[in-house]
Amino acid sequence: MTAAHPRLSLNQATIKYATLDEAVAAAVTAGYESIGVWREPVQEAGIERAIRLLGDSGLRVSSMCRGGFFTMEEGAGRRASIDDNRRAIAETHAVGAPALVLVAGGLPAGSRDLVGARERVRDAIGELADDAAAAGVTLTIEPLHPMYASDRAVISTLGQALDIAEQFPLGVVGAVVDTFHVWWDPQILEQIARAGARIASYQVCDWATPLPADVLLGRHYPGDGVIDFASITAAVEAAGYRGDVEVEIFNQDVWDSPHDLVVERTRESFAASVGIHLS
Amino acid sequence: MTAAHPRLSLNQATIKYATLDEAVAAAVTAGYESIGVWREPVQEAGIERAIRLLGDSGLRVSSMCRGGFFTMEEGAGRRASIDDNRRAIAETHAVGAPALVLVAGGLPAGSRDLVGARERVRDAIGELADDAAAAGVTLTIEPLHPMYASDRAVISTLGQALDIAEQFPLGVVGAVVDTFHVWWDPQILEQIARAGARIASYQVCDWATPLPADVLLGRHYPGDGVIDFASITAAVEAAGYRGDVEVEIFNQDVWDSPHDLVVERTRESFAASVGIHLS
Repeated sequence: MTAAHPRLSLNQATIKYATLDEAVAAAVTAGYESIGVWREPVQEAGIERAIRLLGDSGLRVSSMCRGGFFTMEEGAGRRASIDDNRRAIAETHAVGAPALVLVAGGLPAGSRDLVGARERVRDAIGELADDAAAAGVTLTIEPLHPMYASDRAVISTLGQALDIAEQFPLGVVGAVVDTFHVWWDPQILEQIARAGARIASYQVCDWATPLPADVLLGRHYPGDGVIDFASITAAVEAAGYRGDVEVEIFNQDVWDSPHDLVVERTRESFAASVGIHLS
Repeated sequence: MTAAHPRLSLNQATIKYATLDEAVAAAVTAGYESIGVWREPVQEAGIERAIRLLGDSGLRVSSMCRGGFFTMEEGAGRRASIDDNRRAIAETHAVGAPALVLVAGGLPAGSRDLVGARERVRDAIGELADDAAAAGVTLTIEPLHPMYASDRAVISTLGQALDIAEQFPLGVVGAVVDTFHVWWDPQILEQIARAGARIASYQVCDWATPLPADVLLGRHYPGDGVIDFASITAAVEAAGYRGDVEVEIFNQDVWDSPHDLVVERTRESFAASVGIHLS
């Protein structure tokens, strides 16, 4: 078996139905050096067990997905969300991941005020920045595709994510470049150059149409769609990013396939299509 | 019956299954002063009959939908598309519409080259500009929501549309502001201000989630979703746009409803939600 690319990381959501134990085992068996974890399976494993399991595995932990959901108006719900994000920062630190991925959140029910919602995202990050800095965790804003702007993320472009991140120290707040979300953006290459060391995570998967009935699940193996990984990867590398690169695929067919096959296909499609240098 | 707003135009696609005769009759009966037509039903009516029908109706014709699909590589297919767009310009002139709405087209099969595809859109418009100027028709580029970037329109933002339009004389090439496609764009208000007199069409309908299985059909009556029409309309008016405002709804439930009810609901939702001044 060929080794996996040394910078390839298996985002756990690609084998969504695997437990943390199963995901770690699948990654190690397939020769991966890195894994991106999600809070829910980490909590199911138990945080102490998860720390031990990940530590013993020899895998790096490239990121923790995910915190955020910051658009609520002030009140008990917003306080609970901020507190939960503090716990997420602690968990991210505990598993040794450098980045906590943040999804902004959608418009609150009944609201049409995108501007206000975006301001509340910034304000929440402001409340969490000191905790993140103390924990050595980068709050990593993930712009999501504009088709999720109403119900999931009012931050749609890398430019918007950087507008927020740049209000905070480097290393404390950064951004994700996820090809699925940003490939269409006419400004993406210049925004990646602008981002420079603000890029705290690079996630890849492909875009293909038609979209499935659940538009969250329209992600594909690199090479199975229309994304020009060569240009985006070159820009990310030129910006100085040298971290792990996660493959994160939400796709019912992929989720329904045996984990070992998915992990292998992920490894091969990554090597064939993503164009990441070896170091 | 109250009259319709004097600047409201019924885009024919809102009652997709109506013939041109039926659409005109529905608009007149409901007190509309304007209609936006589509090429297919106009051709089904016969262009000479359509001219007479529209002329006799007393309705203004706010736009012709649609031309475009310009991303093909050079060859017979591209030539046929350019020629078809020349016919569309002539038809637009013939029915007395000021604007021919252009959809850019998606990535050609097997291509990942967004940059090249976008250049070919610009080049096609360059080939058509003299014809449009001679006919007094504005080639009106419609940025489509980024979820259509791969299969339908490589022009996703008003900024991109203006980057192309500004290479040509004012009045010859302009842009559509369609709320469904651009509401999420963090730059939309500044791009509308930039557009000024380049705005050659303002189309409205609402965005709501979840999207339907066919993501083309997720459009709703104004007020039934999350779009803040007040801010977008104010920006369009501040930019100087004084033309008709089309309601264009692609929605299977709307299409399956009786035309007279749809036309009435369109009129009421427009009056209640869109915020267009009377003149």
